[in-house]
Amino acid sequence: MSHGQGQEQQLERLTFFSDAVFAIAITLLVIEIHVPEPEGHGDGVWLQALADLLPHFLGFVLSFVVVGALWAAHHRAFGLLQRFDPSLIWRNLALLMSVAFMPFSSALMSTHPTDRVPEMFYALNLLVSGLLQRRLFRTALRPPYVREDVPAEDITVMNRRTLALPLMATISFILAIWVPGPSNFPLVLMPLVVTWFARGSIRRRSTVAP
Amino acid sequence: MSHGQGQEQQLERLTFFSDAVFAIAITLLVIEIHVPEPEGHGDGVWLQALADLLPHFLGFVLSFVVVGALWAAHHRAFGLLQRFDPSLIWRNLALLMSVAFMPFSSALMSTHPTDRVPEMFYALNLLVSGLLQRRLFRTALRPPYVREDVPAEDITVMNRRTLALPLMATISFILAIWVPGPSNFPLVLMPLVVTWFARGSIRRRSTVAP
Amino acid sequence: MSHGQGQEQQLERLTFFSDAVFAIAITLLVIEIHVPEPEGHGDGVWLQALADLLPHFLGFVLSFVVVGALWAAHHRAFGLLQRFDPSLIWRNLALLMSVAFMPFSSALMSTHPTDRVPEMFYALNLLVSGLLQRRLFRTALRPPYVREDVPAEDITVMNRRTLALPLMATISFILAIWVPGPSNFPLVLMPLVVTWFARGSIRRRSTVAP
Amino acid sequence: MSHGQGQEQQLERLTFFSDAVFAIAITLLVIEIHVPEPEGHGDGVWLQALADLLPHFLGFVLSFVVVGALWAAHHRAFGLLQRFDPSLIWRNLALLMSVAFMPFSSALMSTHPTDRVPEMFYALNLLVSGLLQRRLFRTALRPPYVREDVPAEDITVMNRRTLALPLMATISFILAIWVPGPSNFPLVLMPLVVTWFARGSIRRRSTVAP
Repeated sequence: MSHGQGQEQQLERLTFFSDAVFAIAITLLVIEIHVPEPEGHGDGVWLQALADLLPHFLGFVLSFVVVGALWAAHHRAFGLLQRFDPSLIWRNLALLMSVAFMPFSSALMSTHPTDRVPEMFYALNLLVSGLLQRRLFRTALRPPYVREDVPAEDITVMNRRTLALPLMATISFILAIWVPGPSNFPLVLMPLVVTWFARGSIRRRSTVAP
Repeated sequence: MSHGQGQEQQLERLTFFSDAVFAIAITLLVIEIHVPEPEGHGDGVWLQALADLLPHFLGFVLSFVVVGALWAAHHRAFGLLQRFDPSLIWRNLALLMSVAFMPFSSALMSTHPTDRVPEMFYALNLLVSGLLQRRLFRTALRPPYVREDVPAEDITVMNRRTLALPLMATISFILAIWVPGPSNFPLVLMPLVVTWFARGSIRRRSTVAP
Repeated sequence: MSHGQGQEQQLERLTFFSDAVFAIAITLLVIEIHVPEPEGHGDGVWLQALADLLPHFLGFVLSFVVVGALWAAHHRAFGLLQRFDPSLIWRNLALLMSVAFMPFSSALMSTHPTDRVPEMFYALNLLVSGLLQRRLFRTALRPPYVREDVPAEDITVMNRRTLALPLMATISFILAIWVPGPSNFPLVLMPLVVTWFARGSIRRRSTVAP
Repeated sequence: MSHGQGQEQQLERLTFFSDAVFAIAITLLVIEIHVPEPEGHGDGVWLQALADLLPHFLGFVLSFVVVGALWAAHHRAFGLLQRFDPSLIWRNLALLMSVAFMPFSSALMSTHPTDRVPEMFYALNLLVSGLLQRRLFRTALRPPYVREDVPAEDITVMNRRTLALPLMATISFILAIWVPGPSNFPLVLMPLVVTWFARGSIRRRSTVAP
């Protein structure tokens, strides 16, 4: 905040609030994994109980990486801005709403890993998050919001990358129709794709920023 | 924080703490939506189970938008301040207490969407939040707290806008007496009203700030 | 953070982390109030169900004010510091641990409002929080941590005020031995005392800060 | 954030997000301690009920200190950085994922304090957290990330210290194989070891920083 009055400190606070919502949503993911109460104390009983939780562990990792990638992209994009206005605030809140909903849809999918409707619901939440991110970035990464010294090429690349999550979510959604169980597969691949996209994007950016 | 000692950094920390409480309350809203355990795995069973959760989903969206609008207004108002004193701290804590209570009253209403007492309780929580916000702003948006370069007209507009939430909450409260179920209707409209108020306010402000 | 390297930005981050823990603990207080499931939908049934929750509502308000007062005092004290070292970090973490425990002891007392052990447990948590705050402040509000321009009298006053919470908690603890139920009474008064102490402290300070 | 565009403010936001996740994870630890519902209201019944919760209280304290020590080390290390790139972001997210998982494994161990598999699972979570912290620090505490004015000796010491948690976690893991119950013992000692390491490290640093 320091000495800059007006837009700059307000933009910082908007960023701060977004960071906090991302951080809370990503940490709440674990809340939905309940401690098992197996009958017995033996190692076999316990290993089975933990094995039964495997879908929850995988769901936690998957959702953590997806929300983490959404945060990393948000981090990257908002670092390029110099001002904001109400349309950004509400587009940003819409994205945060979808992200804040993730602990529910992640728990829904993890609790019923072989049913296709929960899986499609989860994919839908990811699709909506991806589209809302794309909508936010397409508005924000333009004058007068974006700083003038940001190369046009960087913005093109960043906008193109917002297609990754909607694309993977759509594939998962469609696969879930025919192959409920194994349709988790592309979702498990998604972190790799998103990670790859995100890593490329930041690496690129770090070469232009001082 | 940087080099500014005294009031400025303390005001920043007060703002920060408020942002964190808003962010946590808004993200905890999802905690109260519990994963359904339908009997059966078919699509119809699941679609019905999700349809049964519709009041929860709507309640989540409604409360998210209301808390989001309260945060946006707080963000706007505190951006105009230059100092604070204990009366602001405790008026602010009173508002935060009401906001932190929202996850409970939102869950109460969503769990019993056709009973009128939970609905009135929810409307009452919104009314109290709105009145506490109004009380905070009426104290804060005055000398010596507010910056001298803020036009008096902006403050008048911002104070008038704090009437929106109490007004809508009162209408919902009264409607709930006679029409328990459909009294959700104005609550569903409320985001639109609040959004409209908020958008107007920030747009206005963004024309005066550099 | 800006340009100040070293102690200053690290102190800011320590403050930030503390604010976040206070904010989360204060907002989690509501989590322990569970939505009632009364048998019936009538107004009388519902008003009774909400009346049954009264101890939870009062416990929420009480704990919110106490944690809020602890935060306000922390806010005030850390605003006077210029450096820190590991002993402050761990004394601060000890205070945060006691604060983070409040949602449990608050729920314990609210769930069993007429039993004396839960009440004494709650008073004990407050007592420990107060003593850990006192221990932290007594170390932190001294050279070389505190800024040189802070009047010695201010520090004396601030240290004396840290006696308020331990004192009230001890009274509540002792009263609970003989009068389990009404021993809530001094706890209900405690916010007033703490508020009065805190208001005085900040008002005083705002006259010396620019 | 102030006037520094580019790397500096982005690094601050990365730090901020990490702080928030640490703060949430550390505060969520209490969520898993459930309010007991003893049959009866007598003191003896209640003292027994609270005594039954002792493993939860100890688990809360233990996990709080471990997560607190991980945060303190993170705080220390990131205070030495001047830039970052995508590899740091994802190594940092990996550490945060393991930390965010702690409320679950802590609750698992506390709920079943005499079974060895939950205890080994908890030790494993600590081991993974320690190794991910070590991996992050070994990458981050090197040019071009670290500031040039940081003495090489400080970095050597800080890297060596990241061995403390993996070491203690491994000892606990192995002890749990033969002595399920008392294997809690080294875990209880761990805070002391980590605290000792952390205190030493920060004290050292505070002698070189201004």
